[in-house]
Amino acid sequence: MGILVVGTVAFDSVKTPEGEANDAIGGSATYFSAAASFYAPVDVIAVVGDDFPMASLDFLRERQVDVSGLEVKEGRTFRWAGEYAANMNDRRTIDTQLNVFSGFKPVLAERHRAHDHVFLANLDPDVQRDVLTQASHTDQPGRSGVVACDTMDFWIEGQKASLLSTLSRVDVLIINDSEALQLVDDHNLVRAAERILELGPRAVVVKRGAHGATLCTRDAWFGIPSYPVSTVVDPTGAGDSFAGGFMGYLARSGETGVGALKRAMVHGSVMASFNVEDFSVKRLESLTEAEISDRLDRFMEMITP
Amino acid sequence: MGILVVGTVAFDSVKTPEGEANDAIGGSATYFSAAASFYAPVDVIAVVGDDFPMASLDFLRERQVDVSGLEVKEGRTFRWAGEYAANMNDRRTIDTQLNVFSGFKPVLAERHRAHDHVFLANLDPDVQRDVLTQASHTDQPGRSGVVACDTMDFWIEGQKASLLSTLSRVDVLIINDSEALQLVDDHNLVRAAERILELGPRAVVVKRGAHGATLCTRDAWFGIPSYPVSTVVDPTGAGDSFAGGFMGYLARSGETGVGALKRAMVHGSVMASFNVEDFSVKRLESLTEAEISDRLDRFMEMITP
Repeated sequence: MGILVVGTVAFDSVKTPEGEANDAIGGSATYFSAAASFYAPVDVIAVVGDDFPMASLDFLRERQVDVSGLEVKEGRTFRWAGEYAANMNDRRTIDTQLNVFSGFKPVLAERHRAHDHVFLANLDPDVQRDVLTQASHTDQPGRSGVVACDTMDFWIEGQKASLLSTLSRVDVLIINDSEALQLVDDHNLVRAAERILELGPRAVVVKRGAHGATLCTRDAWFGIPSYPVSTVVDPTGAGDSFAGGFMGYLARSGETGVGALKRAMVHGSVMASFNVEDFSVKRLESLTEAEISDRLDRFMEMITP
Repeated sequence: MGILVVGTVAFDSVKTPEGEANDAIGGSATYFSAAASFYAPVDVIAVVGDDFPMASLDFLRERQVDVSGLEVKEGRTFRWAGEYAANMNDRRTIDTQLNVFSGFKPVLAERHRAHDHVFLANLDPDVQRDVLTQASHTDQPGRSGVVACDTMDFWIEGQKASLLSTLSRVDVLIINDSEALQLVDDHNLVRAAERILELGPRAVVVKRGAHGATLCTRDAWFGIPSYPVSTVVDPTGAGDSFAGGFMGYLARSGETGVGALKRAMVHGSVMASFNVEDFSVKRLESLTEAEISDRLDRFMEMITP
């Protein structure tokens, strides 16, 4: 089964204790599809400016990613600049330029509407919902796919009602720990996850950065550490790579039960662990199936009691 | 096999978002032995003032804990007062009164020297080493027990050389994540754990609070989340309860291999999860074998991929 991802394709300028990268390829849809492409065909919907070097996405095209849904608009591509603290967890945004991304209205082609698996990256919740309305089969009972979304503090603060409406229509919310707490105004993550389930999703995945990730459903709870990376070069895109491995595994397996969600968590963590080893999508670009399989085996040993 | 613990028996005054407790029974040796007592006989060495209500330790005596090594000195008992932030992770020390604990010089009786398992709670590293010298068999090659210690920022800052000397003589260091980083002056926990192993211990257990714990040896790495507790009442003593479950399991099983260390991590986490459910040692006091066994089963399900 294939996956539809709607998100950003962007330029990131990132400074970390390990170095810096300027105007490097980034964006949620880029990281997501780079990771998910190892598992299933991916269709990308995003917008870039006419300054975007399309050849930089060739490695995705070679790996069953269809980027023909990438709209090229006159103007400059979305740009983000940030700097990470020594702990690689705290980060400071230096600059955000929406550019052509401002007013982004995804239009799904027939091909896009056929996907049972949909990932709505961090976007205006109105836009996320508009995608679901276009892919109307995702609301049908008994469908076999998984619809997941991400969000961030900006939408929680400014568009809460719209976000809640989106959440009522997704299967899985994949969210940072601090934003999970903020979403339901709680200071305990266990309670916060339970309260998020009451908003609609049948599963919540809480990303804890270097501390791992937690899956919470109405009947099950599952926690894993992150794969130990001794030199984190750039954490940008770790969450979207996680989502890519997570959704990729679900799409490839065709399963949606708790067992599959647990295994998807492991795949998500492994993809995120590769992503942080280099700037931009460089590590995901050079990555091989054999490396993934090897790390999966090691990781399973590290988390199996 | 029994366990010798050397640490504090104290009065704690604690304020958390869930309430407060004044002059409640606390101290590292108290929390440790309350948890370890479910697994193995425990011998406590500590000092209290003549204001300490010995009857408050009756529940320990009823559970194979020998508190006859508790020295009663003229004066007031060690007192600590602190307040926790809403996240239950950040805490502020309001007051520390060493009182009779100042100048504490543990003297091991013949009975104490016989224990193969020793836990040196957070103490002056000179004192920790003096205990090991008295229990001289712990330095013998081929012995069957496990010597573990804890430490804190105060000793890392002020007594580094002495602490390093202690670390060269223990099997396991059980330490908070922030203090592990501080000990080797690094900002990556994976690298920090590897560097701590070079200081002597054959295993490092990094406690990450609500985010879980990590075991690192020269050949293995094992990470677990913490057991999900939806209402944390008081985190005081969580680390020592963890150490109690961890060392208790090792003493009961008589094993020292990586498999046993991994299982000990699970037991440590479960004991810590009970401890935080109420103020002081109240939850560990009312705890039953059946509750522990039930939570162990649930937790294993939550961490098994």
